[in-house]
Amino acid sequence: MTNVRALVLERQHELKLRDIDLPQTVGPGEVRIKIHTVGICGSDVHYYTHGRIGPFVVEAPMVLGHEAAGTVVETGERVEHLKVGDRVCMEPGIPDLNSRASRLGLYNIDPAVRFWATPPIHGVLTPYVVHPANYTFKLPDNVSFAEGAMVEPFAVGMQAAAKAKIAPGDTAVVIGAGPIGTMVAIAALAGGCARAVVADLAQPKLDIAGGYQGVIPVNVRDKNLGTEVKRLTDGWGADVVFECSGSSKAWETLLDLPRPGGAVVVVGLPVAPIAFDVATASTKEVRIETVFRYAHQYERAIALMGSGRVDLKPLISGTFPFEDSITAFDRAVEARPADVKLQILLPD
Amino acid sequence: MTNVRALVLERQHELKLRDIDLPQTVGPGEVRIKIHTVGICGSDVHYYTHGRIGPFVVEAPMVLGHEAAGTVVETGERVEHLKVGDRVCMEPGIPDLNSRASRLGLYNIDPAVRFWATPPIHGVLTPYVVHPANYTFKLPDNVSFAEGAMVEPFAVGMQAAAKAKIAPGDTAVVIGAGPIGTMVAIAALAGGCARAVVADLAQPKLDIAGGYQGVIPVNVRDKNLGTEVKRLTDGWGADVVFECSGSSKAWETLLDLPRPGGAVVVVGLPVAPIAFDVATASTKEVRIETVFRYAHQYERAIALMGSGRVDLKPLISGTFPFEDSITAFDRAVEARPADVKLQILLPD
Amino acid sequence: MTNVRALVLERQHELKLRDIDLPQTVGPGEVRIKIHTVGICGSDVHYYTHGRIGPFVVEAPMVLGHEAAGTVVETGERVEHLKVGDRVCMEPGIPDLNSRASRLGLYNIDPAVRFWATPPIHGVLTPYVVHPANYTFKLPDNVSFAEGAMVEPFAVGMQAAAKAKIAPGDTAVVIGAGPIGTMVAIAALAGGCARAVVADLAQPKLDIAGGYQGVIPVNVRDKNLGTEVKRLTDGWGADVVFECSGSSKAWETLLDLPRPGGAVVVVGLPVAPIAFDVATASTKEVRIETVFRYAHQYERAIALMGSGRVDLKPLISGTFPFEDSITAFDRAVEARPADVKLQILLPD
Amino acid sequence: MTNVRALVLERQHELKLRDIDLPQTVGPGEVRIKIHTVGICGSDVHYYTHGRIGPFVVEAPMVLGHEAAGTVVETGERVEHLKVGDRVCMEPGIPDLNSRASRLGLYNIDPAVRFWATPPIHGVLTPYVVHPANYTFKLPDNVSFAEGAMVEPFAVGMQAAAKAKIAPGDTAVVIGAGPIGTMVAIAALAGGCARAVVADLAQPKLDIAGGYQGVIPVNVRDKNLGTEVKRLTDGWGADVVFECSGSSKAWETLLDLPRPGGAVVVVGLPVAPIAFDVATASTKEVRIETVFRYAHQYERAIALMGSGRVDLKPLISGTFPFEDSITAFDRAVEARPADVKLQILLPD
Repeated sequence: MTNVRALVLERQHELKLRDIDLPQTVGPGEVRIKIHTVGICGSDVHYYTHGRIGPFVVEAPMVLGHEAAGTVVETGERVEHLKVGDRVCMEPGIPDLNSRASRLGLYNIDPAVRFWATPPIHGVLTPYVVHPANYTFKLPDNVSFAEGAMVEPFAVGMQAAAKAKIAPGDTAVVIGAGPIGTMVAIAALAGGCARAVVADLAQPKLDIAGGYQGVIPVNVRDKNLGTEVKRLTDGWGADVVFECSGSSKAWETLLDLPRPGGAVVVVGLPVAPIAFDVATASTKEVRIETVFRYAHQYERAIALMGSGRVDLKPLISGTFPFEDSITAFDRAVEARPADVKLQILLPD
Repeated sequence: MTNVRALVLERQHELKLRDIDLPQTVGPGEVRIKIHTVGICGSDVHYYTHGRIGPFVVEAPMVLGHEAAGTVVETGERVEHLKVGDRVCMEPGIPDLNSRASRLGLYNIDPAVRFWATPPIHGVLTPYVVHPANYTFKLPDNVSFAEGAMVEPFAVGMQAAAKAKIAPGDTAVVIGAGPIGTMVAIAALAGGCARAVVADLAQPKLDIAGGYQGVIPVNVRDKNLGTEVKRLTDGWGADVVFECSGSSKAWETLLDLPRPGGAVVVVGLPVAPIAFDVATASTKEVRIETVFRYAHQYERAIALMGSGRVDLKPLISGTFPFEDSITAFDRAVEARPADVKLQILLPD
Repeated sequence: MTNVRALVLERQHELKLRDIDLPQTVGPGEVRIKIHTVGICGSDVHYYTHGRIGPFVVEAPMVLGHEAAGTVVETGERVEHLKVGDRVCMEPGIPDLNSRASRLGLYNIDPAVRFWATPPIHGVLTPYVVHPANYTFKLPDNVSFAEGAMVEPFAVGMQAAAKAKIAPGDTAVVIGAGPIGTMVAIAALAGGCARAVVADLAQPKLDIAGGYQGVIPVNVRDKNLGTEVKRLTDGWGADVVFECSGSSKAWETLLDLPRPGGAVVVVGLPVAPIAFDVATASTKEVRIETVFRYAHQYERAIALMGSGRVDLKPLISGTFPFEDSITAFDRAVEARPADVKLQILLPD
Repeated sequence: MTNVRALVLERQHELKLRDIDLPQTVGPGEVRIKIHTVGICGSDVHYYTHGRIGPFVVEAPMVLGHEAAGTVVETGERVEHLKVGDRVCMEPGIPDLNSRASRLGLYNIDPAVRFWATPPIHGVLTPYVVHPANYTFKLPDNVSFAEGAMVEPFAVGMQAAAKAKIAPGDTAVVIGAGPIGTMVAIAALAGGCARAVVADLAQPKLDIAGGYQGVIPVNVRDKNLGTEVKRLTDGWGADVVFECSGSSKAWETLLDLPRPGGAVVVVGLPVAPIAFDVATASTKEVRIETVFRYAHQYERAIALMGSGRVDLKPLISGTFPFEDSITAFDRAVEARPADVKLQILLPD
């Protein structure tokens, strides 16, 4: 353990930039990374404002941050695909490879996964972190650290797009234009959709999503989403509907949107069980997929960003120096409609 | 139109065996079939007792019956795969091949499908019927008329098994041991499952299902289903869960049953929306499939019956002559726990 | 039948622009289309130069052309989704909807399909054609007739991309940068690939393909394709390899390219059986898919073109007036490396 | 290392039952197993008769045997699902869980896998072996050691059946009725096929396969396989064709067997590249799958055997005491047509 500076959530409502003991020794198969950029995630903010997310409760001081990019500064034994100086981003979850889920390739749903900034695991708003090389990914030269720190939230969109089993040229509907909905829309289009109807109530969010080619923004204050989808698909319905709002209200009309034989991919998590109309789903033989984080998506996301087919820079709404981390979090708490992603720059 | 004898549902609660005008002319691509055996389906009974099923309302006298087997007595032009004398069973739904759903191969979810004994389309509890040859299927010599009339309900089980995307050796759970649950369990086993845990409250039903190799009956009066499934799968969960009870109560614990990455196939239709816990489904990335009737299942069902790998005879609980059709329906209304399928024999 | 002007292949090597009797009456479910643009396909050229393709032999004068766009000028009974004045493109194959393959949704592999400009069926290098409305597709306002006439060859690429079952972010290799290889690369990228390594010997072809974002052109005169793919994938291999050259030589090293568990999609048809090394394929559990024309791809292709995500205009290398059709075909016979697609404009 | 007795292949053609040093210490996550039964595999025999299989050459004395069942006699730290006294069978391959293939769940195609009795890794024809608990599987009470030692070859059949993506009620063709072909047929039927046409030249093999319900044996000395398949499928073709003969001759007519849109699963490995007719495959859009050993199949195989749905006992053709191991191998070299599987019993 070494005493290092970090953004520590002491308890609900109380953030402090202070020193804390963190492991810095590099074991076999591991690398040490100098952190460059860390994005602020809704979950970081939620631990700050609520002190918990479902069963995960902040019971001891915890370093926040899990959307990170940086530079390899040390490599352990048996690390072959990385070397000192490599610019990288990291998966925040470390699975137990011996678990049954991991052996099946489903490491994201291994209950034993250790995930940064999920109690009691520390996050990475701190200058250095030690991490398994297998979950550390090299960035192409044309992908900046800021973009590298966007890979984590984009990977959620990629997982949703993968679960959808998109056929090339599909029409998607994305309900909710928050950070996740927008990431999902971008991933769905990159993943083969011809167009993504993105629905929200907040025009600033729709304006950002609407800047992407293939996105058809629909402000549901002005227009009926079902009517729009029918109009755009000659009455047939959407091939895939991504529910990213987490709103129980969205579920009231959700099943009107897919076409016969279409799919619903659920990304948003409602706080309570929702009312699900089995009969409507069955009449169209709708398939429903659920998503939990992501598995095997980082290299795919980075490849799309490296080839220029996905540009996440328009989603970076503000950058703060490490010393202003608490200001950054307080801005994130405001949830301004035009803020998609705020990031923190660690000192060199 | 020809005046023929038929079992007519005059209106809710009123069945009559009487003459009625029905089309008997054979067009191109059609065959005329002498009906031999007709099974009584829950939907027939429901029209009798309630006069409607959801949006389908009995507003004029309607012949009942859609689970039928018989003999080809006349073939129209361009019929090549059938000849007079062939023993056959028939799909009760006639899709519009030009519809978008049909062209995709999804003819079961074509809203324009015309389905026997679904208002206003007449059923086949009558001596002869004219039907498209493409939806008329030859029975192997070792499959009786009685079994042929079981293909229709078994096809629902086949559709559910197909939707599950069973991997060979999967463990299934089937909730509900009524006719559909039992058919689903048999189809799931024939379709590749190693074992099917079948859950119900009624011991006579479980005894019938339990007679099939691979079925593990669980009386949920005595045992907790979740505990049993965990015990049988070393705590991992079932690969596929078939919900066949239509009970909203079943949904309360349904999502505890599948393994991480497992599937739920919904066959039973609850009368009202159910409470669906998205978070529990998402944590395990559960896939949910829905089922509406069946498409392309008859030949598959018949092949399994012809090869001896599926035996539906134990599910035939009683046979009534045509003249006693109303008695048969009144017995079906009783819903005796040990009655799986009652059938009516048309006169020669 | 009406006497109309058309480009007629009288026999091998002999094209004539002359009058011929063609059906012009519109039946139920049909539309009559004023042809605007017709692309020249390799198969048209091959009938001209060889008089046959495999079992299909030109034994009587046949109108050429099957890549067409135009305007609806008359609609038959029961046509609902099209009206006079609609700008459209057409699938050249008319399947028998009653066939077993069509009922399964696989109408492209229905042996009874009637396909334009495939003996003895006439093509559409003629001012008007009558066609089933279900295989006639409306063009968005921002898709020109010239682009509409590109939908047919692009649909082959779409079918290949669909068969590949691309996961978002996949890396593809496309062998052959001819018209089909380029279409496949564009479809693979639009269909979810992050990048497509396109290999050929002809630099002008590679320059055209290389103009598309995500394409990595590799001239196999200068570079070893296997080495390049390994370098780009850290030694892992490509997720999908599309064989579009039809060269038996390509097969000698083809199986070195996919990753463990990867796929090969075969689009190019070698003239004779090729040597297939089962052991190499098996060691990596490679999946091999084959492609025959396309099914259900037109609407998907049009949606991608309409949303701006696919731009086929750079592939149109030359346009000729109808009166110069024979000049156009003679230019196509030259097979200039920089010619991707030549088109013929019908008179107004 | 401990000096223990074992069946050692000294070099090509020379087997010796003698003492050899083998590791016997149990590490964390490992168990020590008292071996009870070991089956003789074709690969064991091939190393004996040829001294090599492809790139794998016997360059030092090697213990043979990899199809084994036994009893746990010691458990290492962190072993939770097994205890001393458990009757078990073992996967012979130990993958590197950190490899890219393993992390994707494809551990069978991890090139770093260490596989028993594949040079230079020792096999298990010896009284005790130490093995990772995660690749050691508990046998149900009703599955004998002899059957437990059959799980390994049956797992190959299970992998083939999984790759086929069988839809319930499919019709399969299996070419070759040797041990692998028979295992594949049994797995295909258990995995959802209604029937499996099994083709061979050797009647004793067909008689054994034909003893399984659903198998239709076809002696290709007497009958044309293509004609039989057409007859049994009304001219449509088989849904899945499993090539298990490894014969290049079989490939000459192989592609005539699948239906339009059907699949070929290649299990047999021809010694040289075969002639593959791409055009025939493409016209039907045939999918071709290849198989390399198995992954995640043991629990599925054991579940099918435990539920009584799969009985492999009829395939055990002879059992030899450990002291007669060389006799057993010499009998295996004879390759008697009625010998499916010979097994060796280790002393208590």
